[in-house]
Amino acid sequence: MNPRASQGMPDADIETLPGEKPFKRLAIIGVGLIGGSLARALRRAGKRIEIVGYGRNHLNLQRALELGVIDRFETRLADAVHDADMIVVAVPVGAMGRVLRELAPHISADAVVTDVGSTKASVIADARAALGDALPSFVPGHPVAGNENRGVEASTAGLFEDRAVLLTPVAETRPVAIARVRAMWQAAGARVLEMEAEHHDRILAATSHLPHVLAYTLVDTLVRMDDSEEIFNYAAGGFRDFTRIASSDPVMWRDICLANRNAILAAMGQYRQSLDEVMQAIERGDGAALARLFERAKAVRDRVVKKQ
Amino acid sequence: MNPRASQGMPDADIETLPGEKPFKRLAIIGVGLIGGSLARALRRAGKRIEIVGYGRNHLNLQRALELGVIDRFETRLADAVHDADMIVVAVPVGAMGRVLRELAPHISADAVVTDVGSTKASVIADARAALGDALPSFVPGHPVAGNENRGVEASTAGLFEDRAVLLTPVAETRPVAIARVRAMWQAAGARVLEMEAEHHDRILAATSHLPHVLAYTLVDTLVRMDDSEEIFNYAAGGFRDFTRIASSDPVMWRDICLANRNAILAAMGQYRQSLDEVMQAIERGDGAALARLFERAKAVRDRVVKKQ
Repeated sequence: MNPRASQGMPDADIETLPGEKPFKRLAIIGVGLIGGSLARALRRAGKRIEIVGYGRNHLNLQRALELGVIDRFETRLADAVHDADMIVVAVPVGAMGRVLRELAPHISADAVVTDVGSTKASVIADARAALGDALPSFVPGHPVAGNENRGVEASTAGLFEDRAVLLTPVAETRPVAIARVRAMWQAAGARVLEMEAEHHDRILAATSHLPHVLAYTLVDTLVRMDDSEEIFNYAAGGFRDFTRIASSDPVMWRDICLANRNAILAAMGQYRQSLDEVMQAIERGDGAALARLFERAKAVRDRVVKKQ
Repeated sequence: MNPRASQGMPDADIETLPGEKPFKRLAIIGVGLIGGSLARALRRAGKRIEIVGYGRNHLNLQRALELGVIDRFETRLADAVHDADMIVVAVPVGAMGRVLRELAPHISADAVVTDVGSTKASVIADARAALGDALPSFVPGHPVAGNENRGVEASTAGLFEDRAVLLTPVAETRPVAIARVRAMWQAAGARVLEMEAEHHDRILAATSHLPHVLAYTLVDTLVRMDDSEEIFNYAAGGFRDFTRIASSDPVMWRDICLANRNAILAAMGQYRQSLDEVMQAIERGDGAALARLFERAKAVRDRVVKKQ
């Protein structure tokens, strides 16, 4: 964690972003859990920047203003990004292409554009198609943080503390743009790493997209059972935690499934294979195989959680 | 929740169990998370009973004594259940047959025996084979509570507060034995319900056993991936919650899978079917189907958790 992030102190070196660009205005396209939390985190870190919001939900923008998360909002995208030094696109990945196309003509010469999408190859394809000459100013990014809640009401200044933000720049991306996005996320408390977009998508398919699909599928399976109502009556703590992520935004996850289709299908295929093996072990009453598998899973899970 | 349970007040009507049997001595066979929490809950409710512990782990029993969870422990099962008014068998379901066989000759004439196993048809079969004339004094039970932790150190007085305890008596079970077990669990703060063992096993296969197997299988799938180490580095909160139950006791869950094999295989088969449908929807890029499924799952899950 960036120790400055929690002290609320003005911090000269972020008002001057890397490359000596002053950072005076931040436009957030989509002031929800992620966009709102980024704004809160930068404010808490004492950043003296104007934060302009844009989104489709007027009530949510109004609420963001009341909460002091943004300084103002605009009802036209062109007005929201006008003279912005940094534009953060925080919309579901399925809306990314449309939003990037719409804002492309209005990006200031020195502005940096970044996104927070959970899939990166699809966003890069959208950016290539939409941004034209502005492509080098676009830094594909993904803060690996969030929860099942939505809207600016759910946003918190600490959401990115010590969490990873993965940047997946392409060959054309300007190093100074990467440095600026990196500085912004570090000011929000995050650890910033770079990797290839395809690698990102494969890793996240396994560690995030797969669990979400499995949790949605579990609830769906139980809904379709004959004793469905009674089943949910006896759902205990295990069910609650296991399915927390099934309370996530359905549109966001529909988009992720479509955008990262191949990697998710590959991960699901591997899961299905493992599931078949477990079913076969149960079927043949192979306690030793089950104990081995459960013990290894427990050991790895305990280690992973302890490391965090 | 039983309001008395949280007040630590002496409560005369539990020292006399239903049927006018005085309740002076409780034997807990297996002083772990569940057995220990039951002892703590009864103490907190002010029950003036002697609690005797028995188990295979001497250090754990010693710790239970130090913590005041039990009053003494015995190293021979016969001594532990001697003159006990209530015997609670809190061991993995795979050990149930052996323990019941061993304690059968030592059950006092008026004693009630109950268990806390997560599967009930298998325990009833074990009890029928082991208990002989004492079968009518045996009340199959299952507190639907617990977490991934083990041993008396993890036990808490509030574990059963407002949680369901499901009793699955058979035709032979004496009504007064049921009433006594019911009174004990109510004193511990739980809601007590009765149902058929086969029904219990089908419900719990869906709501508890299936999620556990899926969580273990997810961790196993990720372990077997090429990028396994890196994958776990980017495991975020979703992974943590989804896999919490994969940190549960492997032996306990091996036993449950073997003991409730048919119901678990049926639930897994239904899950596999749903998973195939989700994979097919992703494969054909059917966003509408995915959104429908995710929305319904979210709505149901939100409602279930809110009701709790």
